[in-house]
Amino acid sequence: MKLQIAFDGELEQSLTILRGIHDLIDIAEIGTPLIIREGLRAVRRFRSEFPDLTLLADLKIMDAGYLEASLAFEAGCDYVTVLGLAQDRTVRGALEAAASFGGRVMVDLIQTQNAVARSFDLLNMGCHVLCVHTPFDLQADRLNPLDDLAQLRSALPGASLAVAGGLKQGALQALIPYRPDIVISGGAIVSASDPVEAARSFRRKLDENR
Amino acid sequence: MKLQIAFDGELEQSLTILRGIHDLIDIAEIGTPLIIREGLRAVRRFRSEFPDLTLLADLKIMDAGYLEASLAFEAGCDYVTVLGLAQDRTVRGALEAAASFGGRVMVDLIQTQNAVARSFDLLNMGCHVLCVHTPFDLQADRLNPLDDLAQLRSALPGASLAVAGGLKQGALQALIPYRPDIVISGGAIVSASDPVEAARSFRRKLDENR
Repeated sequence: MKLQIAFDGELEQSLTILRGIHDLIDIAEIGTPLIIREGLRAVRRFRSEFPDLTLLADLKIMDAGYLEASLAFEAGCDYVTVLGLAQDRTVRGALEAAASFGGRVMVDLIQTQNAVARSFDLLNMGCHVLCVHTPFDLQADRLNPLDDLAQLRSALPGASLAVAGGLKQGALQALIPYRPDIVISGGAIVSASDPVEAARSFRRKLDENR
Repeated sequence: MKLQIAFDGELEQSLTILRGIHDLIDIAEIGTPLIIREGLRAVRRFRSEFPDLTLLADLKIMDAGYLEASLAFEAGCDYVTVLGLAQDRTVRGALEAAASFGGRVMVDLIQTQNAVARSFDLLNMGCHVLCVHTPFDLQADRLNPLDDLAQLRSALPGASLAVAGGLKQGALQALIPYRPDIVISGGAIVSASDPVEAARSFRRKLDENR
Protein backbone atom coordinates (compact mmCIF):
# COMPACT_ATOMS: atom_id res chain seq x y z
CA MET A 1 0.00 0.00 0.00
CA LYS A 2 1.27 3.40 -0.96
CA LEU A 3 1.06 6.38 1.35
CA GLN A 4 -0.10 9.67 -0.14
CA ILE A 5 0.03 12.81 1.96
CA ALA A 6 -2.16 15.80 1.10
CA PHE A 7 -0.70 19.25 1.65
CA ASP A 8 -3.55 21.72 2.03
CA GLY A 9 -1.81 24.47 4.01
CA GLU A 10 0.66 27.23 3.15
CA LEU A 11 3.38 26.49 0.59
CA GLU A 12 6.48 27.17 2.67
CA GLN A 13 5.15 25.28 5.68
CA SER A 14 4.21 22.36 3.41
CA LEU A 15 7.73 22.23 1.99
CA THR A 16 9.22 22.30 5.48
CA ILE A 17 7.11 19.30 6.48
CA LEU A 18 7.82 17.48 3.21
CA ARG A 19 11.57 17.83 3.76
CA GLY A 20 11.13 15.79 6.93
CA ILE A 21 8.88 13.06 5.56
CA HIS A 22 9.59 12.69 1.82
CA ASP A 23 11.43 9.39 2.26
CA LEU A 24 8.52 7.97 4.30
CA ILE A 25 5.81 8.63 1.72
CA ASP A 26 5.10 7.53 -1.84
CA ILE A 27 3.03 10.40 -3.22
CA ALA A 28 2.91 14.07 -2.23
CA GLU A 29 -0.43 15.67 -3.00
CA ILE A 30 -0.70 19.36 -3.75
CA GLY A 31 -4.17 19.74 -2.24
CA THR A 32 -7.00 21.82 -3.66
CA PRO A 33 -6.59 24.68 -1.14
CA LEU A 34 -2.86 24.86 -1.92
CA ILE A 35 -3.64 24.99 -5.66
CA ILE A 36 -6.13 27.77 -4.94
CA ARG A 37 -3.53 29.68 -2.92
CA GLU A 38 -0.53 29.28 -5.22
CA GLY A 39 -1.60 27.71 -8.48
CA LEU A 40 0.83 25.40 -10.23
CA ARG A 41 3.74 27.33 -8.76
CA ALA A 42 3.27 24.98 -5.79
CA VAL A 43 3.74 21.97 -8.07
CA ARG A 44 6.86 23.50 -9.62
CA ARG A 45 8.33 24.19 -6.18
CA PHE A 46 7.63 20.61 -5.02
CA ARG A 47 9.09 19.24 -8.28
CA SER A 48 12.23 21.35 -8.22
CA GLU A 49 13.03 20.34 -4.66
CA PHE A 50 12.01 16.65 -5.02
CA PRO A 51 12.78 15.64 -8.62
CA ASP A 52 12.00 11.95 -8.05
CA LEU A 53 8.96 12.12 -5.79
CA THR A 54 5.57 11.21 -7.26
CA LEU A 55 3.36 14.31 -7.23
CA LEU A 56 -0.43 14.57 -7.49
CA ALA A 57 -2.33 17.80 -8.14
CA ASP A 58 -5.79 17.58 -6.59
CA LEU A 59 -7.50 19.70 -9.24
CA LYS A 60 -10.88 17.91 -8.92
CA ILE A 61 -11.40 18.61 -12.63
CA MET A 62 -15.06 19.07 -13.57
CA ASP A 63 -14.75 20.56 -17.07
CA ALA A 64 -12.09 21.40 -19.68
CA GLY A 65 -10.42 18.07 -18.92
CA TYR A 66 -7.68 18.22 -21.51
CA LEU A 67 -6.65 21.81 -20.79
CA GLU A 68 -6.65 21.61 -17.01
CA ALA A 69 -4.88 18.25 -16.82
CA SER A 70 -2.28 19.40 -19.37
CA LEU A 71 -1.44 22.46 -17.28
CA ALA A 72 -0.70 20.26 -14.27
CA PHE A 73 1.30 17.64 -16.19
CA GLU A 74 3.36 20.39 -17.86
CA ALA A 75 4.15 21.77 -14.42
CA GLY A 76 5.63 18.43 -13.39
CA CYS A 77 2.79 16.41 -11.86
CA ASP A 78 2.49 12.65 -12.21
CA TYR A 79 -1.21 12.45 -11.31
CA VAL A 80 -4.19 14.76 -11.57
CA THR A 81 -7.63 14.19 -10.08
CA VAL A 82 -10.87 14.38 -12.03
CA LEU A 83 -14.31 14.19 -10.43
CA GLY A 84 -16.29 11.02 -11.07
CA LEU A 85 -19.23 13.40 -11.51
CA ALA A 86 -17.69 15.01 -14.59
CA GLN A 87 -18.91 14.27 -18.10
CA ASP A 88 -17.26 11.33 -19.88
CA ARG A 89 -15.90 13.84 -22.37
CA THR A 90 -14.10 15.65 -19.55
CA VAL A 91 -12.65 12.41 -18.15
CA ARG A 92 -11.48 11.42 -21.63
CA GLY A 93 -9.87 14.83 -22.09
CA ALA A 94 -7.88 14.39 -18.91
CA LEU A 95 -6.88 10.88 -20.05
CA GLU A 96 -5.69 12.24 -23.40
CA ALA A 97 -3.55 14.76 -21.58
CA ALA A 98 -2.19 11.97 -19.38
CA ALA A 99 -1.32 9.93 -22.47
CA SER A 100 0.43 12.93 -24.06
CA PHE A 101 2.51 13.72 -20.99
CA GLY A 102 3.03 10.25 -19.53
CA GLY A 103 0.82 11.08 -16.55
CA ARG A 104 -2.02 9.36 -14.75
CA VAL A 105 -5.58 10.14 -13.77
CA MET A 106 -7.05 9.47 -10.34
CA VAL A 107 -10.83 9.79 -10.22
CA ASP A 108 -12.26 11.28 -7.04
CA LEU A 109 -15.61 9.57 -6.44
CA ILE A 110 -16.72 12.21 -3.93
CA GLN A 111 -20.51 12.56 -4.09
CA THR A 112 -20.70 10.18 -7.06
CA GLN A 113 -23.99 8.32 -6.96
CA ASN A 114 -24.01 4.68 -8.13
CA ALA A 115 -20.28 4.66 -7.62
CA VAL A 116 -19.88 1.01 -8.61
CA ALA A 117 -21.61 1.40 -11.98
CA ARG A 118 -19.74 4.63 -12.63
CA SER A 119 -16.47 2.95 -11.70
CA PHE A 120 -16.91 0.30 -14.39
CA ASP A 121 -17.28 3.11 -16.94
CA LEU A 122 -14.28 4.97 -15.58
CA LEU A 123 -12.06 1.89 -15.72
CA ASN A 124 -13.26 1.14 -19.25
CA MET A 125 -12.25 4.64 -20.27
CA GLY A 126 -8.77 3.93 -18.95
CA CYS A 127 -8.70 5.78 -15.63
CA HIS A 128 -5.75 4.64 -13.57
CA VAL A 129 -6.97 4.89 -9.96
CA LEU A 130 -10.41 5.33 -8.36
CA CYS A 131 -10.55 7.16 -5.05
CA VAL A 132 -13.34 6.77 -2.49
CA HIS A 133 -13.47 9.97 -0.51
CA THR A 134 -15.49 11.13 2.47
CA PRO A 135 -15.78 14.91 2.13
CA PHE A 136 -13.84 17.00 4.65
CA ASP A 137 -17.08 18.84 5.37
CA LEU A 138 -18.70 15.58 6.58
CA GLN A 139 -15.85 14.28 8.69
CA ALA A 140 -17.20 16.02 11.80
CA ASP A 141 -20.09 13.53 11.61
CA ARG A 142 -17.52 10.71 11.99
CA LEU A 143 -18.38 9.46 8.55
CA ASN A 144 -15.54 7.55 6.96
CA PRO A 145 -14.85 5.96 3.58
CA LEU A 146 -14.65 2.34 4.80
CA ASP A 147 -18.07 1.19 3.61
CA ASP A 148 -17.54 2.77 0.20
CA LEU A 149 -14.14 1.12 -0.09
CA ALA A 150 -15.54 -2.29 0.89
CA GLN A 151 -18.32 -2.02 -1.68
CA LEU A 152 -16.01 -0.95 -4.48
CA ARG A 153 -13.39 -3.60 -3.71
CA SER A 154 -16.05 -6.29 -3.70
CA ALA A 155 -17.33 -5.21 -7.13
CA LEU A 156 -13.88 -4.54 -8.60
CA PRO A 157 -11.41 -7.04 -7.18
CA GLY A 158 -8.58 -6.02 -9.50
CA ALA A 159 -9.01 -2.25 -9.67
CA SER A 160 -6.47 0.19 -8.34
CA LEU A 161 -8.26 1.94 -5.48
CA ALA A 162 -7.37 4.85 -3.23
CA VAL A 163 -9.07 5.89 -0.03
CA ALA A 164 -9.28 9.36 1.52
CA GLY A 165 -11.23 11.26 4.11
CA GLY A 166 -9.87 12.14 7.51
CA LEU A 167 -7.90 8.90 7.90
CA LYS A 168 -5.96 8.60 11.11
CA GLN A 169 -3.38 5.96 11.91
CA GLY A 170 -5.92 4.03 14.00
CA ALA A 171 -8.19 3.62 10.97
CA LEU A 172 -5.62 1.78 8.86
CA GLN A 173 -6.16 -1.71 10.25
CA ALA A 174 -9.81 -1.72 9.17
CA LEU A 175 -8.87 -0.77 5.60
CA ILE A 176 -6.39 -3.58 5.05
CA PRO A 177 -8.84 -6.35 4.08
CA TYR A 178 -9.96 -4.19 1.15
CA ARG A 179 -6.42 -3.77 -0.21
CA PRO A 180 -6.42 -0.10 -1.15
CA ASP A 181 -3.44 0.63 -3.40
CA ILE A 182 -3.12 4.15 -2.03
CA VAL A 183 -4.02 5.41 1.43
CA ILE A 184 -4.38 9.18 1.55
CA SER A 185 -3.93 11.14 4.74
CA GLY A 186 -3.59 14.85 5.37
CA GLY A 187 -4.13 16.54 8.71
CA ALA A 188 -3.29 13.39 10.71
CA ILE A 189 0.30 13.80 9.57
CA VAL A 190 0.69 17.37 8.38
CA SER A 191 -0.99 18.87 11.45
CA ALA A 192 0.53 16.40 13.94
CA SER A 193 2.75 17.89 16.63
CA ASP A 194 5.52 15.69 15.17
CA PRO A 195 4.78 15.07 11.48
CA VAL A 196 7.90 12.92 11.00
CA GLU A 197 6.92 10.57 13.81
CA ALA A 198 3.31 10.50 12.54
CA ALA A 199 4.47 9.62 9.02
CA ARG A 200 6.83 6.96 10.38
CA SER A 201 3.99 5.41 12.34
CA PHE A 202 1.73 5.31 9.23
CA ARG A 203 4.60 3.86 7.21
CA ARG A 204 5.25 1.12 9.72
CA LYS A 205 1.59 0.15 9.80
CA LEU A 206 1.42 -0.03 6.00
CA ASP A 207 4.68 -1.97 5.68
CA GLU A 208 3.41 -4.57 8.15
CA ASN A 209 0.64 -5.31 5.67
CA ARG A 210 2.46 -5.37 2.37
CA MET B 1 -28.68 41.95 -17.46
CA LYS B 2 -25.13 41.95 -16.26
CA LEU B 3 -22.23 40.87 -18.43
CA GLN B 4 -19.62 38.57 -16.87
CA ILE B 5 -16.48 37.75 -18.79
CA ALA B 6 -14.47 34.64 -17.94
CA PHE B 7 -10.70 34.89 -18.23
CA ASP B 8 -9.30 31.39 -18.68
CA GLY B 9 -6.00 32.20 -20.40
CA GLU B 10 -2.65 33.54 -19.23
CA LEU B 11 -2.60 36.22 -16.54
CA GLU B 12 -0.78 39.02 -18.37
CA GLN B 13 -2.79 38.56 -21.54
CA SER B 14 -6.01 38.53 -19.48
CA LEU B 15 -5.06 41.81 -17.83
CA THR B 16 -4.26 43.37 -21.20
CA ILE B 17 -7.70 42.45 -22.49
CA LEU B 18 -9.41 43.56 -19.28
CA ARG B 19 -7.78 47.00 -19.55
CA GLY B 20 -9.62 47.43 -22.84
CA ILE B 21 -13.04 46.17 -21.76
CA HIS B 22 -13.41 46.77 -18.02
CA ASP B 23 -15.87 49.62 -18.49
CA LEU B 24 -18.04 47.48 -20.77
CA ILE B 25 -18.50 44.57 -18.36
CA ASP B 26 -20.02 44.11 -14.92
CA ILE B 27 -18.11 41.13 -13.54
CA ALA B 28 -14.63 39.83 -14.35
CA GLU B 29 -14.28 36.11 -13.75
CA ILE B 30 -10.96 34.58 -12.83
CA GLY B 31 -11.66 31.27 -14.56
CA THR B 32 -10.75 27.83 -13.23
CA PRO B 33 -7.75 27.38 -15.58
CA LEU B 34 -6.39 30.79 -14.53
CA ILE B 35 -6.79 29.83 -10.85
CA ILE B 36 -4.95 26.58 -11.62
CA ARG B 37 -2.15 28.49 -13.36
CA GLU B 38 -1.69 31.32 -10.88
CA GLY B 39 -3.75 30.69 -7.78
CA LEU B 40 -5.23 33.68 -5.97
CA ARG B 41 -2.34 35.83 -7.15
CA ALA B 42 -4.50 36.32 -10.26
CA VAL B 43 -7.33 37.67 -8.09
CA ARG B 44 -4.96 40.01 -6.27
CA ARG B 45 -3.59 41.34 -9.57
CA PHE B 46 -7.09 41.94 -10.94
CA ARG B 47 -8.13 43.61 -7.66
CA SER B 48 -5.10 45.85 -7.39
CA GLU B 49 -5.53 47.13 -10.92
CA PHE B 50 -9.35 47.39 -10.83
CA PRO B 51 -10.31 48.28 -7.25
CA ASP B 52 -14.01 48.81 -8.04
CA LEU B 53 -14.70 46.00 -10.49
CA THR B 54 -16.78 43.05 -9.30
CA LEU B 55 -14.60 39.93 -9.33
CA LEU B 56 -15.64 36.28 -9.32
CA ALA B 57 -13.28 33.37 -8.64
CA ASP B 58 -14.52 30.26 -10.44
CA LEU B 59 -13.31 27.80 -7.82
CA LYS B 60 -16.09 25.24 -8.44
CA ILE B 61 -15.87 24.34 -4.75
CA MET B 62 -16.71 20.69 -4.05
CA ASP B 63 -15.44 20.34 -0.47
CA ALA B 64 -13.95 22.41 2.36
CA GLY B 65 -16.46 25.15 1.57
CA TYR B 66 -15.58 27.56 4.34
CA LEU B 67 -11.82 27.33 3.86
CA GLU B 68 -11.75 27.59 0.09
CA ALA B 69 -14.30 30.39 -0.14
CA SER B 70 -12.53 32.33 2.63
CA LEU B 71 -9.24 32.19 0.76
CA ALA B 72 -10.85 33.77 -2.30
CA PHE B 73 -12.76 36.45 -0.39
CA GLU B 74 -9.62 37.38 1.56
CA ALA B 75 -7.81 37.81 -1.75
CA GLY B 76 -10.41 40.37 -2.84
CA CYS B 77 -13.14 38.46 -4.64
CA ASP B 78 -16.79 39.42 -4.51
CA TYR B 79 -18.14 36.07 -5.67
CA VAL B 80 -17.01 32.47 -5.50
CA THR B 81 -18.57 29.51 -7.26
CA VAL B 82 -19.62 26.30 -5.52
CA LEU B 83 -20.82 23.21 -7.37
CA GLY B 84 -24.51 22.39 -7.01
CA LEU B 85 -23.29 18.80 -6.67
CA ALA B 86 -21.48 19.55 -3.41
CA GLN B 87 -22.82 18.49 -0.02
CA ASP B 88 -25.14 20.94 1.72
CA ARG B 89 -22.49 21.26 4.41
CA THR B 90 -20.02 22.47 1.82
CA VAL B 91 -22.48 24.98 0.37
CA ARG B 92 -23.27 26.25 3.87
CA GLY B 93 -19.55 26.60 4.60
CA ALA B 94 -19.08 28.78 1.54
CA LEU B 95 -22.13 30.83 2.57
CA GLU B 96 -20.69 31.34 6.07
CA ALA B 97 -17.47 32.59 4.51
CA ALA B 98 -19.50 34.91 2.29
CA ALA B 99 -21.35 36.28 5.32
CA SER B 100 -18.05 36.83 7.18
CA PHE B 101 -16.40 38.67 4.30
CA GLY B 102 -19.39 40.40 2.70
CA GLY B 103 -19.13 38.18 -0.37
CA ARG B 104 -21.57 36.19 -2.44
CA VAL B 105 -21.96 32.62 -3.63
CA MET B 106 -22.84 31.62 -7.18
CA VAL B 107 -23.80 27.97 -7.55
CA ASP B 108 -22.65 26.28 -10.74
CA LEU B 109 -25.33 23.74 -11.66
CA ILE B 110 -23.04 21.93 -14.11
CA GLN B 111 -23.97 18.22 -14.20
CA THR B 112 -26.50 18.73 -11.36
CA GLN B 113 -29.34 16.25 -11.78
CA ASN B 114 -32.85 17.39 -10.79
CA ALA B 115 -31.59 20.95 -11.04
CA VAL B 116 -34.96 22.50 -10.21
CA ALA B 117 -35.40 20.59 -6.94
CA ARG B 118 -31.77 21.21 -6.00
CA SER B 119 -32.20 24.90 -6.79
CA PHE B 120 -35.02 25.26 -4.28
CA ASP B 121 -32.70 23.84 -1.60
CA LEU B 122 -29.83 26.09 -2.67
CA LEU B 123 -32.00 29.21 -2.53
CA ASN B 124 -33.36 28.17 0.87
CA MET B 125 -29.80 27.88 2.13
CA GLY B 126 -29.23 31.46 1.00
CA CYS B 127 -27.23 31.06 -2.20
CA HIS B 128 -27.16 34.31 -4.12
CA VAL B 129 -27.09 33.27 -7.78
CA LEU B 130 -27.72 29.98 -9.59
CA CYS B 131 -25.82 29.38 -12.82
CA VAL B 132 -26.94 27.02 -15.58
CA HIS B 133 -23.84 25.90 -17.39
CA THR B 134 -23.21 23.77 -20.45
CA PRO B 135 -19.77 22.19 -19.95
CA PHE B 136 -16.99 23.43 -22.22
CA ASP B 137 -16.29 19.80 -23.08
CA LEU B 138 -19.81 19.43 -24.56
CA GLN B 139 -19.94 22.64 -26.53
CA ALA B 140 -18.54 20.95 -29.64
CA ASP B 141 -21.87 19.06 -29.78
CA ARG B 142 -23.64 22.44 -30.12
CA LEU B 143 -25.33 21.89 -26.80
CA ASN B 144 -26.29 25.12 -25.12
CA PRO B 145 -27.78 26.13 -21.78
CA LEU B 146 -31.03 27.61 -23.17
CA ASP B 147 -33.34 24.73 -22.26
CA ASP B 148 -31.92 24.53 -18.75
CA LEU B 149 -32.35 28.26 -18.30
CA ALA B 150 -35.95 28.15 -19.55
CA GLN B 151 -36.81 25.33 -17.17
CA LEU B 152 -35.21 27.00 -14.16
CA ARG B 153 -36.79 30.38 -14.88
CA SER B 154 -40.20 28.80 -15.20
CA ALA B 155 -39.85 27.08 -11.82
CA LEU B 156 -38.17 30.01 -10.07
CA PRO B 157 -39.61 33.25 -11.46
CA GLY B 158 -37.87 35.46 -8.90
CA ALA B 159 -34.48 33.78 -8.57
CA SER B 160 -31.25 35.40 -9.60
CA LEU B 161 -30.00 33.27 -12.50
CA ALA B 162 -26.80 33.24 -14.52
CA VAL B 163 -26.17 31.44 -17.78
CA ALA B 164 -22.86 30.14 -19.15
CA GLY B 165 -21.56 27.80 -21.78
CA GLY B 166 -20.04 28.95 -25.05
CA LEU B 167 -22.40 31.90 -25.46
CA LYS B 168 -21.82 33.98 -28.54
CA GLN B 169 -23.38 37.34 -29.30
CA GLY B 170 -25.89 35.72 -31.65
CA ALA B 171 -27.25 33.58 -28.81
CA LEU B 172 -28.27 36.50 -26.60
CA GLN B 173 -31.64 37.23 -28.19
CA ALA B 174 -32.93 33.75 -27.37
CA LEU B 175 -31.98 34.13 -23.70
CA ILE B 176 -33.83 37.39 -23.13
CA PRO B 177 -37.33 35.96 -22.46
CA TYR B 178 -35.87 34.05 -19.51
CA ARG B 179 -34.38 37.17 -17.89
CA PRO B 180 -30.99 35.90 -16.77
CA ASP B 181 -29.45 38.34 -14.30
CA ILE B 182 -25.95 37.52 -15.45
CA VAL B 183 -24.83 36.42 -18.92
CA ILE B 184 -21.39 34.81 -18.85
CA SER B 185 -19.18 34.74 -21.90
CA GLY B 186 -15.55 33.84 -22.35
CA GLY B 187 -13.91 32.92 -25.61
CA ALA B 188 -16.44 34.85 -27.72
CA ILE B 189 -14.94 38.04 -26.31
CA VAL B 190 -11.52 37.15 -24.92
CA SER B 191 -10.46 35.21 -28.03
CA ALA B 192 -12.11 37.59 -30.52
CA SER B 193 -9.79 39.30 -33.00
CA ASP B 194 -11.03 42.58 -31.47
CA PRO B 195 -12.12 41.92 -27.86
CA VAL B 196 -13.13 45.55 -27.28
CA GLU B 197 -15.48 45.55 -30.26
CA ALA B 198 -16.83 42.13 -29.23
CA ALA B 199 -17.52 43.34 -25.68
CA ARG B 200 -19.14 46.53 -27.00
CA SER B 201 -21.41 44.46 -29.23
CA PHE B 202 -22.46 42.22 -26.29
CA ARG B 203 -23.02 45.30 -24.13
CA ARG B 204 -25.21 46.97 -26.75
CA LYS B 205 -27.33 43.87 -27.10
CA LEU B 206 -27.81 43.57 -23.36
CA ASP B 207 -28.57 47.27 -22.92
CA GLU B 208 -31.26 47.10 -25.60
CA ASN B 209 -33.06 44.61 -23.36
CA ARG B 210 -32.74 46.16 -19.95
